[in-house]
Amino acid sequence: MRYVDAIRIGILGCGTVGGGVVRVLAENQDEIARKLGVPIVVKKVLVKNLSKERSIDLNPRVLTTNAGEILDDDEIDVVVEVIGGVNPAKQYALSALDAGKHVVTANKELVAKHGRELWEAAERTRTAFRFEGSVAAGIPIIKALHECLASNRISEISGIVNGTTNYILTKMAREGWEFEQALADAQHKGYAESDPSSDIDGLDAAYKLAILASVGFGVEVAPGQIYTEGIRKVSKTDIQYARELGYEIKLLAIAKLDGEGLQVRVHPTFVPAWHPLASVNDSFNAIFVRGNAVGSLMFYGRGAGAGPTASAVLSDIMDVARGLSHNGRHYRPEVFKPWGGRLDVQRMEEIETRYYVRLQVVDRPGVLAVIAKAFGDNHVSLESVIQKGTGSPVVGLVFITHLVKEKNLRSALACIRTLSVVKEIASVIRVETGIEADVQRYPHD
Amino acid sequence: MRYVDAIRIGILGCGTVGGGVVRVLAENQDEIARKLGVPIVVKKVLVKNLSKERSIDLNPRVLTTNAGEILDDDEIDVVVEVIGGVNPAKQYALSALDAGKHVVTANKELVAKHGRELWEAAERTRTAFRFEGSVAAGIPIIKALHECLASNRISEISGIVNGTTNYILTKMAREGWEFEQALADAQHKGYAESDPSSDIDGLDAAYKLAILASVGFGVEVAPGQIYTEGIRKVSKTDIQYARELGYEIKLLAIAKLDGEGLQVRVHPTFVPAWHPLASVNDSFNAIFVRGNAVGSLMFYGRGAGAGPTASAVLSDIMDVARGLSHNGRHYRPEVFKPWGGRLDVQRMEEIETRYYVRLQVVDRPGVLAVIAKAFGDNHVSLESVIQKGTGSPVVGLVFITHLVKEKNLRSALACIRTLSVVKEIASVIRVETGIEADVQRYPHD
Repeated sequence: MRYVDAIRIGILGCGTVGGGVVRVLAENQDEIARKLGVPIVVKKVLVKNLSKERSIDLNPRVLTTNAGEILDDDEIDVVVEVIGGVNPAKQYALSALDAGKHVVTANKELVAKHGRELWEAAERTRTAFRFEGSVAAGIPIIKALHECLASNRISEISGIVNGTTNYILTKMAREGWEFEQALADAQHKGYAESDPSSDIDGLDAAYKLAILASVGFGVEVAPGQIYTEGIRKVSKTDIQYARELGYEIKLLAIAKLDGEGLQVRVHPTFVPAWHPLASVNDSFNAIFVRGNAVGSLMFYGRGAGAGPTASAVLSDIMDVARGLSHNGRHYRPEVFKPWGGRLDVQRMEEIETRYYVRLQVVDRPGVLAVIAKAFGDNHVSLESVIQKGTGSPVVGLVFITHLVKEKNLRSALACIRTLSVVKEIASVIRVETGIEADVQRYPHD
Repeated sequence: MRYVDAIRIGILGCGTVGGGVVRVLAENQDEIARKLGVPIVVKKVLVKNLSKERSIDLNPRVLTTNAGEILDDDEIDVVVEVIGGVNPAKQYALSALDAGKHVVTANKELVAKHGRELWEAAERTRTAFRFEGSVAAGIPIIKALHECLASNRISEISGIVNGTTNYILTKMAREGWEFEQALADAQHKGYAESDPSSDIDGLDAAYKLAILASVGFGVEVAPGQIYTEGIRKVSKTDIQYARELGYEIKLLAIAKLDGEGLQVRVHPTFVPAWHPLASVNDSFNAIFVRGNAVGSLMFYGRGAGAGPTASAVLSDIMDVARGLSHNGRHYRPEVFKPWGGRLDVQRMEEIETRYYVRLQVVDRPGVLAVIAKAFGDNHVSLESVIQKGTGSPVVGLVFITHLVKEKNLRSALACIRTLSVVKEIASVIRVETGIEADVQRYPHD
């Protein structure tokens, strides 16, 4: 039995995040050692290429191209997995846990797809599996849901969890740009990758939502169960209409629990301008949580980047170290298992929400009546209508509906599509009213 | 050695918060027992009056007027102190810790004034002392600073930590009310007490700031070391000028660490309209934190109320339970000691900030030159000037200064006060520019 004199870590991957962990650890090592009582020492770092030039200051003897040198090193207490993707990350994480090592990861895809399996492996081997950095980087939302709000029944987790799309939507709103121009700017600034699809099509947000729902509701949600719609179709015109109507358009990841079951969806959303999420701009992330005791909370910050992600990874390591027994092995049980339970995920057609519908129609008397009837015939009641550009042969017609089942809206749109006076269904965007301001349920003290 | 089959708690005090703990525990007991593995059971509740009518559903045999029945009960694992004030709360907490019981409190005055002593008592007796509920109720800011951001060097904690004053300032801004009218409304709505001084004079905020600074910077800060200025002198006119200049006025509790040492101050502040804190309205609280790795974070939510505070207290209890060994006694060490270190608190005269200064002056040629000279002679350089109401004999003259040492501003005001053309120094409010938008220090991933 070895008394813990230092927490020795092995880092799998030395890209942006891995490099950030090394850099922040070097920068804050005194602070960390003072708080923890022992230092965190980087024993090995797995890299692809030993000879590559690196901006970070690392003893070359620490670098290795052989994962085994980390996974089989009995002196390494914690393995930090920051390779990304499922393979070989998953196998590495599993063998680390089986070897009695604690695993800290920032890998959203891995946790979203295989979190349950990894968690159970950690339970079996009495090790820790931590993943704060996998959602919204340094914003401590995982620990908030897992520990700080554990006494609540959570009813909603709605957030802006992808900085790239939020940057694009912010630019479109501020500069009056179309999507393509804002995307090009985001790529130029390094916020979006050359292949941006994982961000702008909502996959990245869906991975994060799967993790948030698992921790917040204690159930397993597969990314495939999440309705996912990106921002490619959001136009400058829609953003202008949204603002006229008192909304901002945000890509929201929404998990809600109601009598019908769990809703999990990612899509562009009209958010009321007064809502705290509406003023989250640029590449910032924010997650709004509602619990039955705590009411509404919002967590705001940088949702990506080497520094913020390293903050989460290193704090996870410190937290693991704190839970270790003197021999550095046995780990205290977690308060609860995020993937413990089961909940039915609601079918999208059954979900009730409000909608913004923008049509291009022929400017002719009676058109509005025909379209309104098509809505009515399908049990879609309308809250407001805006007609613009009268005079030109084709004009924009904008509707906001009341709460309506998605399947009813779809059938209404199917009818409307067949109308000769309708040139185009230009856009359909959900309007969220579920995220209302919290009404306090208990007397104020 | 008793195996833990339940976490038995004794609650000292059954007011708004104590009642909330009982109510939320009853409401969420299944959720809590499922997560924790064992239930949390209320064994005793200390009350002043056994026969008082209570809205909460409690077995009368649980009530006692004798604190000893809780402090001396070997079966009670956790004592919840929600009496408020220092006496007898402190004595009760100390004897509970000495008896090997864990203590969870929501008592800001107790923690702000005696946190170090209580923490050391807990270290000595290997028990837990937790106080999440003592600052911003259910917003998990204590755990965020203590654990989630432990890997960072924190440079700033600035927040709106008093809901009453934020409600009043929001009403003044929205309704164009003067302070007195907004205060009356807050009292009518139950947000402010009949004697509101602890809120509106900033004492409540100062207690919370002392706690935040202790946890965030790991040093002991006595409430008496905090410069504290309330909102009584903020007028509707100042709020109107602020908005014209692109600011909102908020009562901020500010703790900043720079080369000169620690700044701790509570005062009305001009906050740039774009800053996330500027859009925190009504009785909501929000705390803005800057760490060297994580960048800027903000935590937003209900900062008071029975439900939100109970959320914090119960989550603290669950957290304590999670750290217990099987016999329910030995407690794992905390990651670090909030009151561990020492830092010099900067003298207010030496602090550099910007200022909004509003004067009532005689409308006569050359007045501006005389006043500008008085500023200049005292090394106060001006960023902008607004003059209004020309024509009337006395007009308002508003200045925003550049960064200036407080002592220089004070001497400038002393000169200005002596000028015959100056009828009144109507108001002086600090303008915060330290709380800038975060500039990302690491590449984006």
